Amino acid sequence: MRATYMYGAGDVRVIDVPDPAVQHPTDALVRVVRSCVCGSDLHPYHNMPASERGESMGHEFVGIVEDVGSEVRTIGKGDFVIAPFAWSDGTCDFCREGLQTSCRHGGFWNAGDVRGGQAEAVRVPLADGTLVPVPVEENSPLVPSLLTLSDVYGTGYHAAVKARVTADTTVTVIGDGAVGLMGVLSAQQLGAPRIILMGRHKERTDLGREFGATEVVAERGTEGIAAVRELTRGDGTHVVIEAVGHMPAYEQALGVVRPGGVISRVGLPQYDDAPVGWDLFGPNITLTGGPAPARAYIETLLPAVLDGTVDPGRVFDTELPLDDAPAAYRAMDDRLSLKVLLRA
Amino acid sequence: MRATYMYGAGDVRVIDVPDPAVQHPTDALVRVVRSCVCGSDLHPYHNMPASERGESMGHEFVGIVEDVGSEVRTIGKGDFVIAPFAWSDGTCDFCREGLQTSCRHGGFWNAGDVRGGQAEAVRVPLADGTLVPVPVEENSPLVPSLLTLSDVYGTGYHAAVKARVTADTTVTVIGDGAVGLMGVLSAQQLGAPRIILMGRHKERTDLGREFGATEVVAERGTEGIAAVRELTRGDGTHVVIEAVGHMPAYEQALGVVRPGGVISRVGLPQYDDAPVGWDLFGPNITLTGGPAPARAYIETLLPAVLDGTVDPGRVFDTELPLDDAPAAYRAMDDRLSLKVLLRA
Repeated sequence: MRATYMYGAGDVRVIDVPDPAVQHPTDALVRVVRSCVCGSDLHPYHNMPASERGESMGHEFVGIVEDVGSEVRTIGKGDFVIAPFAWSDGTCDFCREGLQTSCRHGGFWNAGDVRGGQAEAVRVPLADGTLVPVPVEENSPLVPSLLTLSDVYGTGYHAAVKARVTADTTVTVIGDGAVGLMGVLSAQQLGAPRIILMGRHKERTDLGREFGATEVVAERGTEGIAAVRELTRGDGTHVVIEAVGHMPAYEQALGVVRPGGVISRVGLPQYDDAPVGWDLFGPNITLTGGPAPARAYIETLLPAVLDGTVDPGRVFDTELPLDDAPAAYRAMDDRLSLKVLLRA
Repeated sequence: MRATYMYGAGDVRVIDVPDPAVQHPTDALVRVVRSCVCGSDLHPYHNMPASERGESMGHEFVGIVEDVGSEVRTIGKGDFVIAPFAWSDGTCDFCREGLQTSCRHGGFWNAGDVRGGQAEAVRVPLADGTLVPVPVEENSPLVPSLLTLSDVYGTGYHAAVKARVTADTTVTVIGDGAVGLMGVLSAQQLGAPRIILMGRHKERTDLGREFGATEVVAERGTEGIAAVRELTRGDGTHVVIEAVGHMPAYEQALGVVRPGGVISRVGLPQYDDAPVGWDLFGPNITLTGGPAPARAYIETLLPAVLDGTVDPGRVFDTELPLDDAPAAYRAMDDRLSLKVLLRA
């Protein structure tokens, strides 16, 4: 089959690899219907050292179950399924607490002998715990929105949940990428009366307004901080969703969070150390967030997707065939595309 | 009157200064009955550059109101009062939210023209918002416990509250100083079924056991981390109260916190940057805490002090007259005393 591999910064190739198959009794084999490129895939696209072996790519996909192992109970051949961006047993204490990213027997795609979703098919470990079947056809117009439940929608929702967004909290979202926009949508769903979106790509922030942003601040750095403070009587907002992962975004978050407030990070941090001394401690700021247990939120978020109340799939502004994955990475890296859907 | 000033690292003097007096209509003048030396006072005792002017010291005191300004309504002459370690108006939005340390009109002792509590008397700004009158005599045996409500008890409680300790959370407390021990007591009051105290001073950890610690780990660093992990199936605890403020304590906290858990810091950080990249983000750890709004917790914690259910004043193991403040600092710095009460 065809699968996407990265061989170093800027070097993405779609290659022929052996077809995956069920290996363990708890596996499922999923034929991919749609996958996509994540903002976090751009980090290795910038930094990855050259590798002869290459790394398989992709952690967001929906598809049709083609085969299941003998112990799989809740998933069957022909099911349309959503695969969240971590696989998990669904039964350990962490899974029961809704922290499937720390599952005692789970893991992430593209690690060990588990391959990635930017491919024609994927062997899914612990299929009962991992996959969520949805009663739709593979050509349903809902497919892009269902695919956002693999990662970006659940990630934006995780940011809002960890920050305890309610009808009493004002929110700033830093970053107008797909995760930032899903943070806006999630904050709106949780009742936030005011959502300031910081981003400078007008077509993205316009979409953010449709998802619920009440104000947009295009400036960055100290100017951006001053603009948010001016909007908030000098205080900043109760919650800041940091959906970028670079140090300037963290510094911006510190600059616009209200005393006693929460910075919720869902952008993969591209730094090890950050200022958490008096700047964070003095005003009693809480720093939270992490890789979203997307699996935990699928049942919660699914109904409004299925009935059309929300349309998170609008974050996909480009669709390409799988063989054009290198072009998909380029388009996202050049900010020509917000998020690219790959048709397997 | 006599007052304690610090002139540089290791250089504490009790000197004569002009008597304070009511200056503003919202002030109260409080004659100090007892004050004390805080673990955080040891930071400048180690680091303060030499100063000719010196800095007034002390942010924990109880006393008798001797005079009030014309606008003070809730406090009167002769009242026994507790002064929390920040002064605040009690009416702004931050105060109403219980974050008096961020009061819009308040501040900290020993800043601007407000002097410290290690003295015979203190001018207290915004007396109605700041002071809490308590119906006891100044020679009551409850005085030491009431004094802990100025800071250390409220600080330990703040750590536990910010970490959302409940009957479902296991807790590690790092640090066997007075704040750590108050963190133990607070976690116990909030129902934590298991409280591991990390400290190596046996008489202190013995007191910690009386306050509610279920286990004590004397080892530090990687050995200490391994010991806590061994006690917790390798997982660490849901909550870590970090009551020290030095980098090794932060690193220890990262090492013993369970995925999805909370590190709650109440030791004043003696660092600016700290590791908050994948180590904190990957397991979805929340970092919270800050200077405790001790004022917010006094009404909550007072009844059990007044009726003798708890005796937090046991953290004071030494009492000295005010003029011996230099010896009090030395005794705490040399770990000969856990916490010294100063008799004004």
